[in-house]
This record gives sequence, structure tokens and C-alpha cells, in this order.
Amino acid sequence: MSETKSAVVLFSGGLDSTTLLAKALAEGYRTYALSFDYGQRHKSELNAALTLSKSMGAEDHKVISLDLRAIGGSALTDPLIEVPEGASEGIPVTYVPARNTVFLSIAMGYAEVLCAHSIFIGVNAVDYSGYPDCRPEYIQAFQQMADLATKESVEGQSIRIETPLIDLSKAEIIRLGMGLGVDYKKTVSCYQANAQGIACGKCDSCRLRREGFDAAGVSDPTPYI
Amino acid sequence: MSETKSAVVLFSGGLDSTTLLAKALAEGYRTYALSFDYGQRHKSELNAALTLSKSMGAEDHKVISLDLRAIGGSALTDPLIEVPEGASEGIPVTYVPARNTVFLSIAMGYAEVLCAHSIFIGVNAVDYSGYPDCRPEYIQAFQQMADLATKESVEGQSIRIETPLIDLSKAEIIRLGMGLGVDYKKTVSCYQANAQGIACGKCDSCRLRREGFDAAGVSDPTPYI
Repeated sequence: MSETKSAVVLFSGGLDSTTLLAKALAEGYRTYALSFDYGQRHKSELNAALTLSKSMGAEDHKVISLDLRAIGGSALTDPLIEVPEGASEGIPVTYVPARNTVFLSIAMGYAEVLCAHSIFIGVNAVDYSGYPDCRPEYIQAFQQMADLATKESVEGQSIRIETPLIDLSKAEIIRLGMGLGVDYKKTVSCYQANAQGIACGKCDSCRLRREGFDAAGVSDPTPYI
Repeated sequence: MSETKSAVVLFSGGLDSTTLLAKALAEGYRTYALSFDYGQRHKSELNAALTLSKSMGAEDHKVISLDLRAIGGSALTDPLIEVPEGASEGIPVTYVPARNTVFLSIAMGYAEVLCAHSIFIGVNAVDYSGYPDCRPEYIQAFQQMADLATKESVEGQSIRIETPLIDLSKAEIIRLGMGLGVDYKKTVSCYQANAQGIACGKCDSCRLRREGFDAAGVSDPTPYI
């Protein structure tokens, strides 16, 4: 195929989506990173994301402002809900209602404007089994909806949702990224990193990250508070 | 049923969505209006919407800021694309990529936070046949995705997408609204109304509105420039 394929990559600057961006680049895609400023508690992830995407070779990087605080309902968007420390049972309070659906929808609009035929999203059904919108059956249903939703779909071309991390453990994601040259020191996964982007080391996301490096047999390069 | 049902109503303050809000209220729903400030060319629709929802009896009205100008691609969000006058062929340039999907997704998140079980959207397959995301098969696919996307869906309850206007002509929508007491003078449909909310009378949306009143045999109360 002589024409370069284009992809929108949902990219937060965290461990998973940085591996995802590296994977899309390694597969030869011209990549368009897409991040959201959705009323998270800190902007350090977003700043890390902008620096990373540029150094990794993304074609462009758009940040969409979307104030999900107006609807609330999650520890990540509502200052009245505490971010829990350690593992939680069932659907965690850090779950943001409909977040992946909202992000995928906007990515679909961006892909339509770019005439890109792929959207990469770093959902993971292993570590995030508590999130309904990380399940493979959810992604399949989104794909079916996307096949009917866009101008391209009317004109006979659809947008593929790519989820290369969906079946990988955190350790497998880290090994994949190491093989692709990802510098994990520059990625921020923490739900409540401080203003300098230093991770707390205690929240669910930090715990999964620590355990992942441990299981991968790789020394964790993350600076913690 | 003794418990009052709740619904999120996607509400722009235009002719269709005002009829929709009146319909949801008439069906006994406790209604939560949801509007978007997505970089439209004018804020007059939004102002009309806030006044209308209050006077009609909505429980609450949230406006979500979402800057779709960052992705562009439509005459409604990109100042470089002209709003056409008169009818257009195929998918019009006023189509905003993935707009209904984005709006429905955020409504789904809001419904999840409210524990509401219905979302009302004023899509219409008759007059807007050029928009892929106004087709009944698209709405069905969104419903299937929604059935897998939310915390409620995991816990056995899903959110119903209600589209009471989907098969109605503009004249039928107007007759429905007149029967429900809608004051159409207060609604703004125009793609390029001026700062005072006065409609241009020339764009596709104004044309459909004029023709609708004509076909309904009702005098058009809209002030035009």
C-alpha cells in the first residue's frame, strides 16, 4: 500500500496510551493525537502528553476542552468525591460516566474531518474489568454504530476502532512499549499527580502501574511523591 | 407507575427540540435539558433555550462547553465554510461530523449520573435525510451500544433513546407542538441568526421551517431579518 494510512490516537500521556501511540507509529500510521481537557484534577498528564506526542513523531495533537464537571458523577471530575487508595470492588468511583463513548465519538468526528480510517484507543479489559466501556463487546457495539454514523459510512467507507491493548496485561503492555522504545519515565498514569506531574504512588492507577513493572521484571522508572 | 420517570432531553431551543421537550413533559417525565456550546456561530439559540426550558418547566438545564471548532469540518463550526442559502444536494456542509453521537454520548453520561432511564433526541429522518446520524438504523445501533456502555447496563438497567419526532414531517412536528402549547415565536432554528436571535430566513433550516408552517396551515410566527 503506497498511500500512508492515517489514524486518530486517543492519547492521555499515560502508560497505556503512550504505548498505543508507539504501536500506531510502528505500524506506519500517520498519527493525529487527541487529548481532552475534561475537568481532571490536574493538568500534568496533559502537559506530559503534548511533550511526548511531539517527541514521538505525531503529525498533530489536538486538545479538546470538554467540561465534564458540569455533569459530575466521578472522583476524577467531581471534587466532592475522594480518589480511593488501593484496590476497589466493582465499578470504581474513578469511572467517568460514558467517558470512552464521548472520547470515541469526538475521535470519530475528527477522523471524519481528516478522512482517517482508524481510531486507536488504549482500552484494556484485563486491569479495567470494572469499567463497562472497556469490554470487547462494548467496542464491537461502538464499531457497529460507527459504521452507520458518519458521512464516510454513507459513502461506503467506515472508520475502524483499533484496540491493540485490549487483551494485554499491564506487564505485557510495558514489554510491548519497551520493545518500541517508549520512555515510561515521561508518562503519567496517576489519578492525582501533583502540579509537577509527580505521581502519588497510592491510587488504583499507580498500584496497577507499579505491579505491572514488577510483573514485567522491569525497574519502575516512575518518580513517586 | 407511582415513581416519576426522569429523562435527559437534548435541547437546542430550536423548533424540533422545543417540541421534543414539550412532548417529554406531556408524557410526565421529570426533564433535564442538555445544551451544548460547541462553537456555533451565534449564542442566540442557547439564550433562547435557557429561557424556554425554564418557562416550560424543566427540572434543570445544563450547558456543556465543548469546542468542536478544534476539529472543524462544518459550516456550523468552521468560520471558513459558508452557510449555504437554499436547498443542498447530498450531505450538506452544515452537517457537523459525529455531532449526534457526541451529544448522545454526553447525554448518556448525564443520564447515568442522574439515574435517568430515557434520553430524548429530536432527530428527524424526513427533512434531514442527508444526515447519516438522523437515520433510524443509526439510532438503533446507538441504543445497542448504550446497552453495553454504562454502569447501569452492567447492573441490569439500560437507558432508552427516545426519538418521537423521527418519522414526522416538519408540518406534523409543528402540529404536535401547537397541540402541546409550544410558543414557536420563542424558538430559533436559523443556522446564522444575528446577535439578537433574529433568523436569516434564507438558510436550509429557515427554509424547512417556513415550508413547515406553510404545510401545517399555521401562520409562521418567526421574525425574520
